[in-house]
Amino acid sequence: MSGAAKPGEFELISRFFAPLCRAEAGAFGLTDDGAVLSHEPGKNTVVTMDCLVAGVHFPESEPPEQIAWRLLAVNLSDLAAMGATPQAYTLALALPHNWDAAWMAAFADGLKQAQDEFSITLIGGDTVATPGPLTLSLTALGRIDAGQELRRNEAKAGDVIYVSGTIGDAALGLKVLKGELDGLDSEHEAFLLDRYHRPRPRVNLGLRLGGIANAAIDISDGLAADLAHLAEASAVACVLEADQVPLSAAAREAIAEDSLNLTLALSGGDDYELLFSAPPSLGAAIKALSEELALPLTPVGKIANDTNAGQVMVRDANGREILLAESGYRHF
Amino acid sequence: MSGAAKPGEFELISRFFAPLCRAEAGAFGLTDDGAVLSHEPGKNTVVTMDCLVAGVHFPESEPPEQIAWRLLAVNLSDLAAMGATPQAYTLALALPHNWDAAWMAAFADGLKQAQDEFSITLIGGDTVATPGPLTLSLTALGRIDAGQELRRNEAKAGDVIYVSGTIGDAALGLKVLKGELDGLDSEHEAFLLDRYHRPRPRVNLGLRLGGIANAAIDISDGLAADLAHLAEASAVACVLEADQVPLSAAAREAIAEDSLNLTLALSGGDDYELLFSAPPSLGAAIKALSEELALPLTPVGKIANDTNAGQVMVRDANGREILLAESGYRHF
Repeated sequence: MSGAAKPGEFELISRFFAPLCRAEAGAFGLTDDGAVLSHEPGKNTVVTMDCLVAGVHFPESEPPEQIAWRLLAVNLSDLAAMGATPQAYTLALALPHNWDAAWMAAFADGLKQAQDEFSITLIGGDTVATPGPLTLSLTALGRIDAGQELRRNEAKAGDVIYVSGTIGDAALGLKVLKGELDGLDSEHEAFLLDRYHRPRPRVNLGLRLGGIANAAIDISDGLAADLAHLAEASAVACVLEADQVPLSAAAREAIAEDSLNLTLALSGGDDYELLFSAPPSLGAAIKALSEELALPLTPVGKIANDTNAGQVMVRDANGREILLAESGYRHF
Repeated sequence: MSGAAKPGEFELISRFFAPLCRAEAGAFGLTDDGAVLSHEPGKNTVVTMDCLVAGVHFPESEPPEQIAWRLLAVNLSDLAAMGATPQAYTLALALPHNWDAAWMAAFADGLKQAQDEFSITLIGGDTVATPGPLTLSLTALGRIDAGQELRRNEAKAGDVIYVSGTIGDAALGLKVLKGELDGLDSEHEAFLLDRYHRPRPRVNLGLRLGGIANAAIDISDGLAADLAHLAEASAVACVLEADQVPLSAAAREAIAEDSLNLTLALSGGDDYELLFSAPPSLGAAIKALSEELALPLTPVGKIANDTNAGQVMVRDANGREILLAESGYRHF
């Protein structure tokens, strides 16, 4: 952002945001008091909301395309965790005084890239000035067959715990970005940075987990912390086998350099993979789904058969408990 | 807010916000990745979003109950302007570090008061920390019969322009609050402050304007500015008769003291009354509705029959044009 001349609110909306709502007639080109969405019979609406603050949730200097992508992605990840099909979103932008048209054009372009990738459309929102940091709030709406939402609270004793993709890349990418992790192979470094900057919410996976997963959550706070959320909601205990957690080649290199990076991978946030539990009998179906989606779905532990509801035990390859110093992102 | 001990995010949600979602089972007690809303056949969903920043949209020192009420009210006013029935809302709170439990309890109480008054329920949201000012984003969802939403863009030449309630009280109340308007009768002063602090969105009126109003908008930026928005959207010109604009006894006292307060009343924001246009033939029906709702609905002008689309001419009792220095709230 710089201090260059900039448009007023109405021009801002018509120039940068109205083009993002064209796919939804009920957005009225962002010219009315609200948007109107119609519904298909038998479908419910899933509603999620996330707020990101510059300097807290992303570096102040992050390119606007990446900020926009992240903002949509974190909400789409919540829709994915519920098994919903993305439909529409509203966006509130609290803008510091130093934004300019180039910044806004790049931000809108990042929104457009994510909209196109995940088939979701802007339908409304608000733009205001703030003396504080850039603050972005997004409400995402999705469609789901009535009664088919994936919940966190239905994990059953004996379920196998799965994760999608690879774990810890985003937290390691942030460490690279901060200059705290160097000496990696340059392709690995680029891979980790991309995993931090451009999370890929597992929307297609979420849509296929109905009838398979007993419980699901997305990994935003960190694998250990989000598994604890699922365990608490389901009133079950879990065992996480650290040596089974799927790691990228880049993460393996970082861990080979410093074994503390394994702890970071298990507890760091921002992966936006899905974590779910399913009955052991569905192992073959999950393997087939993994192949069909070309997305690793890896068993990493079990829902235990005991009474320590909400407890997560992380074990190493020798069955010894690993105590994680950081147990995920703390919001305060 | 003070630096006293305060709960973490999960306790914050369970203690202050979960009690606000009990009316909607699909909010899952704010314990899942999102909420799920079902739909009645033939109903569409109206979606609105507004963002308020401390020090920009309300004074930093405003009591938390009033901040909460205002936040819900400004969104409910948008639903009212579309003719929708309030249903549910999500809330993103970006909190400075100096909040405490007493502040949050009062804020939640303000939300509860507005929820009870307007029959709307919290279903989700996000709470984050910010190094900047308190920043609040709210997305409100309402129900409306398919195709029955009130729009801004259907005002017709010859329509009579109406406003609900009285105009300018909130802007004059803010002037009282700032210490720039004194010497008023103490009851009048209290009335104006209350009109600023506790806007009453005209939800019940909005629900009754279907089949009556050709176009509607809520008065948030100011009467003159919002009339201009309606005129632009409808591609019509308007005449506003300043001497017909309904004023409270308190506003009349302020204007008698200083005639510039009339300009402020016509151009100041935050009244959250409804402005609508309707065919002259519906005058009797509108009068009956006004009596039924015990809410003044006053004709204040006309949609003109000329080609200066978007133009608003404000006239005094002698037909002379009044030029308004301030044309409503500017967001940047």
